Amino acid sequence: MLATEAGELGFCLRVLADSPSDPAAFVCPETVVGSADDPAALRELLDGADVVTFEHELIPDTVFDVAAATGVPARPAQSALLYAKDKLAMRQRLGELGLPMPAWANGADLDAVKDVGRRCGWPLVAKISHGGYDGRGVRLVSSLDEFKTWREGLDEGIECLVEQRVPFSSELAVMAARRASGELRTYIPMQTWQEQGQCAAVLEPAQIPVDIIDQAEELARQIGVELDITGVYAVEMFLVKTPNGKYHLYINELAMRPHNSGHWTQDGCVTSQFEQHLRAVLDLPLGDTSRTAPYTAMANVLGSKLEDPAQAVTKVMEKYPEAKIHLYRKSNRPKRKLGHVNVCGTDPDLELSSARAAANLLMGK
Amino acid sequence: MLATEAGELGFCLRVLADSPSDPAAFVCPETVVGSADDPAALRELLDGADVVTFEHELIPDTVFDVAAATGVPARPAQSALLYAKDKLAMRQRLGELGLPMPAWANGADLDAVKDVGRRCGWPLVAKISHGGYDGRGVRLVSSLDEFKTWREGLDEGIECLVEQRVPFSSELAVMAARRASGELRTYIPMQTWQEQGQCAAVLEPAQIPVDIIDQAEELARQIGVELDITGVYAVEMFLVKTPNGKYHLYINELAMRPHNSGHWTQDGCVTSQFEQHLRAVLDLPLGDTSRTAPYTAMANVLGSKLEDPAQAVTKVMEKYPEAKIHLYRKSNRPKRKLGHVNVCGTDPDLELSSARAAANLLMGK
Repeated sequence: MLATEAGELGFCLRVLADSPSDPAAFVCPETVVGSADDPAALRELLDGADVVTFEHELIPDTVFDVAAATGVPARPAQSALLYAKDKLAMRQRLGELGLPMPAWANGADLDAVKDVGRRCGWPLVAKISHGGYDGRGVRLVSSLDEFKTWREGLDEGIECLVEQRVPFSSELAVMAARRASGELRTYIPMQTWQEQGQCAAVLEPAQIPVDIIDQAEELARQIGVELDITGVYAVEMFLVKTPNGKYHLYINELAMRPHNSGHWTQDGCVTSQFEQHLRAVLDLPLGDTSRTAPYTAMANVLGSKLEDPAQAVTKVMEKYPEAKIHLYRKSNRPKRKLGHVNVCGTDPDLELSSARAAANLLMGK
Repeated sequence: MLATEAGELGFCLRVLADSPSDPAAFVCPETVVGSADDPAALRELLDGADVVTFEHELIPDTVFDVAAATGVPARPAQSALLYAKDKLAMRQRLGELGLPMPAWANGADLDAVKDVGRRCGWPLVAKISHGGYDGRGVRLVSSLDEFKTWREGLDEGIECLVEQRVPFSSELAVMAARRASGELRTYIPMQTWQEQGQCAAVLEPAQIPVDIIDQAEELARQIGVELDITGVYAVEMFLVKTPNGKYHLYINELAMRPHNSGHWTQDGCVTSQFEQHLRAVLDLPLGDTSRTAPYTAMANVLGSKLEDPAQAVTKVMEKYPEAKIHLYRKSNRPKRKLGHVNVCGTDPDLELSSARAAANLLMGK
């Protein structure tokens, strides 16, 4: 999705793909087939480039080493990306900044883990620090013993942490973009719904009081500046409504790339997150983040019982003429993100139910 | 632009390109390099296809012959496309349908030409019947002698016609789409501005009375049905305002494909003309043609004094943050359409002047 927008802006995007059948290779004229661990492939990728950027965070250090050696700026920088790769480092840093987040402890420190359990009550959320994704590497543990058993099952050298299980009333995400030279723009906060650890649906704007909207945007802005992020990033948050009607935000996760929760920007916003990411990493003026519709809902296609979700496209067009279908041409696997559907309009409940129903058809449900 | 939308809908688009460096080959995973006159290349192109369609009208009969032999439907059909390829056939047919158009005569019939000159007054517009494009093959002639001289300069076998020079107050275009099974949707009429025979800018909706909007849409609808068009098509019209304040429409040209005047739909409409064309030729339900902004202006990048218009992208982003830039990665030649800029908003004059100014920067002006 970055490649097509790059083409329209006249930029040449070269992609590193594991195999020639990678979906990015379908739409990207210049594809280097190779591994991100292979310096030769990386040198070919970076030859003559203005900048190198990423579409996920599990980027080996080799990439930054080769980028530094060839003089190509990496955006976001290794020092910023750390906080999206390493949850322990992220919690440590956000704590230093005094930002609101769940109580947490390093899983190596059993006394600290016990203390969080005592203060917040079990169960706690146990997570591996690196490489967890879409619910993988995350486990609810209801006692210190259960935590220890889980920790012993981890591979040698895998670090972990525990976090308070926040009794949230809803989950939010805020997308933002920051240029290397400092300009920063946020998108309006979204509400997200997770199912089995995966994002199932998104609605923007989130249906929350305007002062909470402002607070959430300010948190995203502060994180961008303090962590010196370049490019598009997402801050996932929990929103807790207390019995006395007050709201509290807790920072859950960070992502430093165009993010699934920002896919609504393709159809509901002046500047999509993909164009915005290109502008930000190339240090160009950021685009307008105004919405083009009062509400946009997005629902993910998470695996499909059909051989190919494209088989249901006609049915979606017939039943949901307002649905904008985006399929990724990935091979079908259980729970794999194969595409998404956006619906723009004036009634948030209706747009959300249409988007979900359309995505269900593509999932063969 | 068809290829990227096809990908997102999960459709596989295969393109026939003259060379591997054709812009379509950049974004289309399956490219057959060859000529539309070469039956072997065409059989490779059509192997297993559901439908074959076109992005211009100068399609040799070989394409239709091979499509018929391989059982692949061609949409639009040869019988419809004729009226976009052959201006004499088009005038003849529209005349039979009683539709409003300039007075005209077959250039082979000098008495008829003289008669049009006598009734409408010289100069007349002389055109070749096949293959004229962007002002090429069109000439204003101020007398029968001048017409005869022009006609004698044409290559052997080239047919031509003359048309009344309509004293228009503005030029309009109406885009529409029609499915093989009959469903038809129009887009709101646009005003267009031509310079040296090329479309320079477009504004939608056209600033004309609502009953003329309705009349223009009805003309487009009637042409789609009567000519049995499938796919997206454009009807270009002249609007004449008489001294007593009445309006009259005259049909100028037909195009049967996504059309330059419909590029605004990429940023200002729920369903872009490219997605709509795919839906129409695949006989799928047509998409919503509602606008997403009160006004959208489009300006073309017609050649560039810069080596590459992409060199001015930063400047456009700085000066016109509201501009949506679309470049085609075509090699630069004088007056060649290298891209376009869309601007959506609430003030038609402002959007139009921003789009034009942004396009000027990309043209190196």
